[in-house]
Amino acid sequence: MKPILESTLIDALNWRYAVKVFDASRKIPDATWRALEDSLLLSPSSFGLQPWKFIVVKDPALRAKLREHSWNQPQIVDASHLVVFARRTTQTSADIQRHIDRIAQVRGVPVSSLDAYKGMMLGFVEKPSPGFDAGVWASRQAYLAMGVFLTAAATLGIDACPMEGIIAPKYDELLGLSGTGYTTQVVATAGYRSEKDDLARAPKVRFDRSEIIQYR
Amino acid sequence: MKPILESTLIDALNWRYAVKVFDASRKIPDATWRALEDSLLLSPSSFGLQPWKFIVVKDPALRAKLREHSWNQPQIVDASHLVVFARRTTQTSADIQRHIDRIAQVRGVPVSSLDAYKGMMLGFVEKPSPGFDAGVWASRQAYLAMGVFLTAAATLGIDACPMEGIIAPKYDELLGLSGTGYTTQVVATAGYRSEKDDLARAPKVRFDRSEIIQYR
Repeated sequence: MKPILESTLIDALNWRYAVKVFDASRKIPDATWRALEDSLLLSPSSFGLQPWKFIVVKDPALRAKLREHSWNQPQIVDASHLVVFARRTTQTSADIQRHIDRIAQVRGVPVSSLDAYKGMMLGFVEKPSPGFDAGVWASRQAYLAMGVFLTAAATLGIDACPMEGIIAPKYDELLGLSGTGYTTQVVATAGYRSEKDDLARAPKVRFDRSEIIQYR
Repeated sequence: MKPILESTLIDALNWRYAVKVFDASRKIPDATWRALEDSLLLSPSSFGLQPWKFIVVKDPALRAKLREHSWNQPQIVDASHLVVFARRTTQTSADIQRHIDRIAQVRGVPVSSLDAYKGMMLGFVEKPSPGFDAGVWASRQAYLAMGVFLTAAATLGIDACPMEGIIAPKYDELLGLSGTGYTTQVVATAGYRSEKDDLARAPKVRFDRSEIIQYR
């Protein structure tokens, strides 16, 4: 199966940019937003552990408060949708067991048939490699999901802006994440670019292919 | 513009899985692989700094050696294509200047017109926030690019497997990255699934939507 043409994909990725000014009057249709949520749910993750939650912030008052902890960037309130990518702060044997139980449930297999896989994952948690940090590991997974989300949005003709300039502890407080085992990592806003955003018409800046891609 | 339907995207993401057994006889056509390289080049990154290189390993002998440092996983040699995601180990004012020079070149604007943007990025490098680690920051960007790549592949009907189980220092040695300011972060293999891969037919395991997506 080949769902789309190469040119369709590349046109969409060239069309995409990090929106600075959204058209605050335009809202993403429900069915399209649902597909973007699905892209987050379907994102791959290390061992399939899904060490994340995605928080869709709809309350305008809450979005206004979050903006204060986002360098006052207007996208936080003007975009159609705001989604906060939160990730696990730790990874425990209970997280592994939850994943194993879910595999057994979805695939209709005995939990005991997954003992080898479980043992491998428990080793990863209980005897980590030197320098391994479960929070950093989970933060990378959140960025992978961001890559999926931004690409999915582009293919659906939805504009977006990934945003790192946020005060995560303040987000955690305002979203009720503090003490839950999850913490704010990064944010995406999504919607429709404004005609007023000059960057929409600026040529995309990338280093030359020869500086980025190497062949061995 | 709306390049594809929601159902096309979601079908592709459901079709995707982390391939364990590739059909070693099938190769990705050049035009399709070129589009996947383009998806890497077009990946967003923090400040647009592109703190990465993507190394496409074609030499079968080199791939066989890399397999020895990849838990002996067969995808390293059986997949049509192997791409190593390398990321910057540090981020210096020279990296910022290189990016500024490139913006000026691509957009045809004077370097001096970018002074404010440059100052902000220099602050990020020279006066980092407490706990900021440029290597970790760059590693997250590499994972974002992985998310783009895997989603792009799925929409083109190309199978893939993201692989973290590699010995990065050995990869760096074999790829000539040691001492270059770049280090191996993660690997993707891409090609076509084998009929022998039972996981291709296993139901996808995800936690329930209500556990992953929250609304506020």
